[in-house]
Amino acid sequence: MLVLMKYNASEEQVSEVVGAIRAMGYDARSIPGGQRTAVGLIGNDGRADANRLQGLPGVSEVIPVTRAYKQVSREWREEDTLVSLSNGTVVGGTDLIVIAGPCAVEGESQIVDIAHMLRDKGATVLRGGAFKPRTSPYSFQGLGLEGLRFLARAREQTGLMVVTEALDPDGVDLVAEYADIVQVGARNMQNYPLLRRAGRCGKPVLLKRGMSATIEEWLLAAEYLLAEGNDDVILCERGVRSFTRHTRNLLDLAAIPVVKSLSHLPIIADPSHATGLRSKVIPLGRAAVAAGADGLMVEVHPDPPHAMSDGAQSLYPEQFAELMEQVEAIAHAISRGVTAPLEVVSTG
Amino acid sequence: MLVLMKYNASEEQVSEVVGAIRAMGYDARSIPGGQRTAVGLIGNDGRADANRLQGLPGVSEVIPVTRAYKQVSREWREEDTLVSLSNGTVVGGTDLIVIAGPCAVEGESQIVDIAHMLRDKGATVLRGGAFKPRTSPYSFQGLGLEGLRFLARAREQTGLMVVTEALDPDGVDLVAEYADIVQVGARNMQNYPLLRRAGRCGKPVLLKRGMSATIEEWLLAAEYLLAEGNDDVILCERGVRSFTRHTRNLLDLAAIPVVKSLSHLPIIADPSHATGLRSKVIPLGRAAVAAGADGLMVEVHPDPPHAMSDGAQSLYPEQFAELMEQVEAIAHAISRGVTAPLEVVSTG
Amino acid sequence: MLVLMKYNASEEQVSEVVGAIRAMGYDARSIPGGQRTAVGLIGNDGRADANRLQGLPGVSEVIPVTRAYKQVSREWREEDTLVSLSNGTVVGGTDLIVIAGPCAVEGESQIVDIAHMLRDKGATVLRGGAFKPRTSPYSFQGLGLEGLRFLARAREQTGLMVVTEALDPDGVDLVAEYADIVQVGARNMQNYPLLRRAGRCGKPVLLKRGMSATIEEWLLAAEYLLAEGNDDVILCERGVRSFTRHTRNLLDLAAIPVVKSLSHLPIIADPSHATGLRSKVIPLGRAAVAAGADGLMVEVHPDPPHAMSDGAQSLYPEQFAELMEQVEAIAHAISRGVTAPLEVVSTG
Amino acid sequence: MLVLMKYNASEEQVSEVVGAIRAMGYDARSIPGGQRTAVGLIGNDGRADANRLQGLPGVSEVIPVTRAYKQVSREWREEDTLVSLSNGTVVGGTDLIVIAGPCAVEGESQIVDIAHMLRDKGATVLRGGAFKPRTSPYSFQGLGLEGLRFLARAREQTGLMVVTEALDPDGVDLVAEYADIVQVGARNMQNYPLLRRAGRCGKPVLLKRGMSATIEEWLLAAEYLLAEGNDDVILCERGVRSFTRHTRNLLDLAAIPVVKSLSHLPIIADPSHATGLRSKVIPLGRAAVAAGADGLMVEVHPDPPHAMSDGAQSLYPEQFAELMEQVEAIAHAISRGVTAPLEVVSTG
Repeated sequence: MLVLMKYNASEEQVSEVVGAIRAMGYDARSIPGGQRTAVGLIGNDGRADANRLQGLPGVSEVIPVTRAYKQVSREWREEDTLVSLSNGTVVGGTDLIVIAGPCAVEGESQIVDIAHMLRDKGATVLRGGAFKPRTSPYSFQGLGLEGLRFLARAREQTGLMVVTEALDPDGVDLVAEYADIVQVGARNMQNYPLLRRAGRCGKPVLLKRGMSATIEEWLLAAEYLLAEGNDDVILCERGVRSFTRHTRNLLDLAAIPVVKSLSHLPIIADPSHATGLRSKVIPLGRAAVAAGADGLMVEVHPDPPHAMSDGAQSLYPEQFAELMEQVEAIAHAISRGVTAPLEVVSTG
Repeated sequence: MLVLMKYNASEEQVSEVVGAIRAMGYDARSIPGGQRTAVGLIGNDGRADANRLQGLPGVSEVIPVTRAYKQVSREWREEDTLVSLSNGTVVGGTDLIVIAGPCAVEGESQIVDIAHMLRDKGATVLRGGAFKPRTSPYSFQGLGLEGLRFLARAREQTGLMVVTEALDPDGVDLVAEYADIVQVGARNMQNYPLLRRAGRCGKPVLLKRGMSATIEEWLLAAEYLLAEGNDDVILCERGVRSFTRHTRNLLDLAAIPVVKSLSHLPIIADPSHATGLRSKVIPLGRAAVAAGADGLMVEVHPDPPHAMSDGAQSLYPEQFAELMEQVEAIAHAISRGVTAPLEVVSTG
Repeated sequence: MLVLMKYNASEEQVSEVVGAIRAMGYDARSIPGGQRTAVGLIGNDGRADANRLQGLPGVSEVIPVTRAYKQVSREWREEDTLVSLSNGTVVGGTDLIVIAGPCAVEGESQIVDIAHMLRDKGATVLRGGAFKPRTSPYSFQGLGLEGLRFLARAREQTGLMVVTEALDPDGVDLVAEYADIVQVGARNMQNYPLLRRAGRCGKPVLLKRGMSATIEEWLLAAEYLLAEGNDDVILCERGVRSFTRHTRNLLDLAAIPVVKSLSHLPIIADPSHATGLRSKVIPLGRAAVAAGADGLMVEVHPDPPHAMSDGAQSLYPEQFAELMEQVEAIAHAISRGVTAPLEVVSTG
Repeated sequence: MLVLMKYNASEEQVSEVVGAIRAMGYDARSIPGGQRTAVGLIGNDGRADANRLQGLPGVSEVIPVTRAYKQVSREWREEDTLVSLSNGTVVGGTDLIVIAGPCAVEGESQIVDIAHMLRDKGATVLRGGAFKPRTSPYSFQGLGLEGLRFLARAREQTGLMVVTEALDPDGVDLVAEYADIVQVGARNMQNYPLLRRAGRCGKPVLLKRGMSATIEEWLLAAEYLLAEGNDDVILCERGVRSFTRHTRNLLDLAAIPVVKSLSHLPIIADPSHATGLRSKVIPLGRAAVAAGADGLMVEVHPDPPHAMSDGAQSLYPEQFAELMEQVEAIAHAISRGVTAPLEVVSTG
């Protein structure tokens, strides 16, 4: 941490800052400059609180130098984390993972039928919301527990792994019982009781980036999971809020190489929620793969115009087939491949 | 809802849209234009889902016309909502309310002492976090239940009402037991299980605007509370995320008159979290009052440099006195006043 | 400037950074830390280029410490700059200035009539566009030179000072010939040839903040004016672009106290362009004054529904009278006043 | 244009809106709805001004339906525009164009040497700034006319086409004399006198997206060029301003398919300015190609640590070779190619 003094700060003020740093238990070093003095806080373990220094007299600015996250950092662990799902499928390796499915589970045959179709076309993980966070209290909120059972049924019949979202701490345990990956959605990226519970749930967690989260805030949210002992975290870029209006959110593909350099965790992209527009999902899905994503998460619906939510961004089944072909071509162009679905595991 | 067709949409495509609208249970009316046809959806009760129409062939854009929120709307209820706290203090009337206190409850004497000081200087509600949502898992997370007890003690001794934040559904019940107002923080504005519980907790709720929430999303979050039967909702503008870096967030004072025209709910402003800088709290606090806010929420600490969190934005006690003076002057300039603290209610 | 090395940077890499800094003509000082080494660049005159260091091997981040602007800084000049207009009216003193008028000059009698009305109600400077920057090439682009002449006529008859915008370097000279203040609009805040010419035009300059300019970029744009010898610069906050949609732009009132602490230049606010909505101009105008603005710039039109541009944000004459009353009340509440219009200067 | 009335608008107010629309020369049609009436403006030629209606009594909102741009629209011209450079190289066809070079022309041998290197590795157009728009008045501002001459020399010797930026109307003519493509930079996207002159300069124009421009504003800026008779316009996405801080700007790759559906103009991407970080240029360059860009513009410098500007984002020559290889691979994966440089045209 570096404390910049005002150009006319007095020696007493500099001394006071040095004293405050020492009182916090760190070492301080004054650095005279051409225009102003700076005071460095030495030995920061990531817990030093800038706020204590910010408001002291004569202080112009406090610049954080040490990053607040630890276990998610590549400086903590150099090699890439490989997240293994319960059937042995690996996320974060050379081969990409494709997660697909409808926005919401709408019924048993809907989800089972689409699961068969998706598996045939090469998806390895099935998505589908059972608990839906909806902006309006009057919108369809999901089938709940019944939805989880339908997802489990689809897994039994197709061998696809299942990911679905939990909305509150108790929901985490319920979802973890039925699904292979517990999703924490964008709206809940800083829901700390939820993150803590997900960190103890015993299943891999898919952590979506918050609507207006910086990379550092996102990695700190992941840190909550690792701090509770769960290393199996998959990050998912899904677009951020901006002034632009031509897509629902602004897909931040630079986040992919940036996260890969800062952290060892795998990162995938969700072009469906990022754009909100079916016709942009394929080009942006290709782009995410080209940028280095470890996989994609896309919405596919057997009959998008009649979907109970997010129909406008759901691909038709034949578009999903087209996406898979193009993703394979792009993956090969950068010496990667796409993970194939496994054989159905008999659960008898 | 208005469905704009592409300029070269065929008659069949227009018919398909009309059919889809009717299948959703609404009336449809085609509106030929100079460049393109539009189809109006008539009789929308606020539940019609744009997504169903967005992706239909020949559709260029779907424009929402009906607002999704209802009970929070001024069209639902014309007169201003007055929220009464348990000691009879009213929020949303001619007189402004001033909520003040430290970021976090740090100990019994800290909170009791500051409460006495705040009451002497004119605050009517005491704030102080017992459960703190922190970006890093390694930061101080609050005293929890003990903090709630200290807040209750401060109320007993000063007569100040108490507001503090709840982080999860179970926490709502706990907070409602000890506090007079349950706060839902910015990070939890779209935490729907939390909102539902707060809507049933029997206490007024202070709902902060989310970091990147539109006014409509914020009002829909409030709608969750009203939909559960809780009409005692106070909105709080606390700045939004933007590209600017000179303050922590960008205080959106236009939100105040805009919310007042769209909704009957009272709205206050929090210049402390909005700016993150002590020296900007007074000018922005004055500005919020001038813009029409029904009150302010500010952080005050007896010894900001030694605060356990957010010290840089906390006012010194003498600055709070100065703020109160200036707020009174501005309030009078626009024919309003500032609510005075009540006498201590004996709890013997 | 502080160069943060990666946690595993080698000694050679640190030496290379030190060498690069010395080759740039500055002193370097290595600062060992708990997690990583930093290298400070000492003696920066504001011209040291971070880019040279950013890409060196082992470098994690380069943090600017010295600010790039000089003459606009309060560290360069402590006391407030007072800008004197040609009739002696002062901008930046205790009393506020109110600039008002239509978006565009539409004809001689329109501008002369409104000028009389505005003067009667207390405005001191008349605004009105002769050259209009329009998003579409098919929109009304202003009356040009004829518009300048009409503005001069209005000044003759009312004694109001005149401000109007220049769009290109040649236009600056033309505007400076007719107007008392040359306006550089938001779209041109980083039009450097225009700024250089305005810096040599011999008239005060009103510099609007760019649509997405940081405070530092804005002050650097002002620095272009001062660097050419023009110290008479008035800054104008007019809202920035954001994700919000309830007003056209997001008025950033925190910019007012922030600019006042960083710079000695006067700063006013334009609530008309910031909101784009007539009904929000009065509350936001009041708020700007409460935040410490040195004046306001507002659009007023004799007949807004028939304005040739920006009618929706123009006040009716009687609303302007109401604004003036409220602005006076707020100004008095913070011990300031409003500058009264001077007597007509006979030009015979 | 659709005018939404307030839910309690009177019949007189509706009539007044209908009258105002007719007075503007258009047809009006009232559309009764479930909650409120709307009035459609029929026959809009793109010039109807929403502002006239926005502020009328009883009006809640005015929704633009007709797009303000015309000639740039795909509805005006269905097939893709192919821009031909003076040596016959085509921009906008199946094969991608790669524009490369240093941020600024620093000297004759620097630019000629790098041009040879770039040509050998497959670039077809040379970039290099002669007039540099710099945030600070104290930064290097380019070599000016001399720089243009050095660029022309590099073309003579390598056959590469040349693109460079003009900063003011007179500069456009000068640049057009020496270069093959005139660049309008992000800061000048709404510099209308500059655009008008560029629209009459007789050379193709590369129009960068403004820092915070919507797609519609960008297309309207291009419309200024086409309205002056210049159809040879190449758009360039270079990132927009956002709250994120991990890259200099946020590259908006969704803009590529969105622009391609709205307009017939070719669009390329500039990952160097978008990221500001050398190590992110290759993954984002690949992603832009995968998203459907018609080409790339990248900064390459023979010795980035000693570049006079933007060194941190400039590729080393060997990184440029790597980029070219990967771009070719991605282009082939989506059935496109990369345009090869032509033989040197003897100018003797």
